[in-house]
Amino acid sequence: MRTLRLDVAYDGTEFHGWQIQPKLRTVQGVLEEALNAVLNEPVRITGAGRTDTGCHARGQVASFSSDTRLPARSIAPMLRRHLPDDVQVLAARDVGAEFDARRSALGRRYAYRLLGRRDVLLERMAWHPRRPLDPVRLESAVRALEGEHDCAAFAASGGSGTTCCRVMRASWQRWEGGLQLDLVADHFLYHMVRNVVGTALMVMNRQDPGAAMASVLASRSRGQAGPTAPPQGLCLEQVFYPAEVV
Amino acid sequence: MRTLRLDVAYDGTEFHGWQIQPKLRTVQGVLEEALNAVLNEPVRITGAGRTDTGCHARGQVASFSSDTRLPARSIAPMLRRHLPDDVQVLAARDVGAEFDARRSALGRRYAYRLLGRRDVLLERMAWHPRRPLDPVRLESAVRALEGEHDCAAFAASGGSGTTCCRVMRASWQRWEGGLQLDLVADHFLYHMVRNVVGTALMVMNRQDPGAAMASVLASRSRGQAGPTAPPQGLCLEQVFYPAEVV
Repeated sequence: MRTLRLDVAYDGTEFHGWQIQPKLRTVQGVLEEALNAVLNEPVRITGAGRTDTGCHARGQVASFSSDTRLPARSIAPMLRRHLPDDVQVLAARDVGAEFDARRSALGRRYAYRLLGRRDVLLERMAWHPRRPLDPVRLESAVRALEGEHDCAAFAASGGSGTTCCRVMRASWQRWEGGLQLDLVADHFLYHMVRNVVGTALMVMNRQDPGAAMASVLASRSRGQAGPTAPPQGLCLEQVFYPAEVV
Repeated sequence: MRTLRLDVAYDGTEFHGWQIQPKLRTVQGVLEEALNAVLNEPVRITGAGRTDTGCHARGQVASFSSDTRLPARSIAPMLRRHLPDDVQVLAARDVGAEFDARRSALGRRYAYRLLGRRDVLLERMAWHPRRPLDPVRLESAVRALEGEHDCAAFAASGGSGTTCCRVMRASWQRWEGGLQLDLVADHFLYHMVRNVVGTALMVMNRQDPGAAMASVLASRSRGQAGPTAPPQGLCLEQVFYPAEVV
């Protein structure tokens, strides 16, 4: 048995998220079907991040085990013929048997894109909040998240496991359409990025947005945080692994 | 009778271009239908640029005559409820009776977007030519177009009227996904921007890309120019009018 790693990008607009579900079009489902056709065997893949309906990925990573004798470098071009336009396998390679796209990940980088004005070409991948965006105040709000914190305030209810996250980077940068939040952490809670964006916008016009964000964080209460920003702005950009396993 | 101006943006991916055609989904057709519903009268609109199938617009301008008594400022919000997600009317306003979106235009700005690498989120609005892009050489190629020239070499065959164009700006800039050509001229020939892009890529690796482009231009022969770049990279960004008519 070999272990293979796929680097995957998709436009999530027409998918019911990553995770396979009966009768629904999901990225995992479409990928497994294409792999099945190319490898002539049923495979079950593991994704590093289970993105939601309407969310995107440019740097999703998936792993699977297979008996195939195909050279890894020929798998991505072969998959291309079996994949729709909204999913791309950027690369396929052999990795060590211990590699698991989800469990081996040390961290992930998500981007959330805001539009400063309506833009019909970018609205599939960004959200227009219909209010003026203040980059300095938004930056001061999210910077309060950097470090190791209990992020329960930003977790959708019903999650299990630790709510402690080490946030390595929380910062906005300009992009084509407006502002983009880059969030890098070792661990993300369900809806965390979208809740951080909703909260940053909520506290943006407070007297001290950084202090307001810190106070939401310290409350550990979802009720103190802002609304969940819509899915189309979110994109899983990158997954980090220890150098020895990739 | 009033004359009204609409500022329009659309994602051209799912349209058979601007111009109304029986049984095909076109931007003009969809807009006229929505106007009909809002104004309760059939209207015929004129667009500043007749974009092709798959081409986009962020700054298309349309004009029409109407007997409606609706205040202009209420038309865009009302149209919104009758328009699909891929067409937006950004503004509607009263203009002088002499205003004609097409004939009154002094110039237009088109952008053509190239991707430096595959990007599933941007491929609806940009073209990935699958070769390394050299910004300096591409810039020197297109700069040769600035000024007043007979641009017949870049015109699809079968066009009529003058092939003389005053090119006010021809320059690449960086954007999110790679490089974007901005072309501003008083007059564009059919397929001109897409042929300029195909030619710029063709001459990019010649010894002197600017001289090669100038020689294609001077030939006035479509056969000397490069292939037509695909439609999805093209976007009508802006239309210029004399200050007194808008």
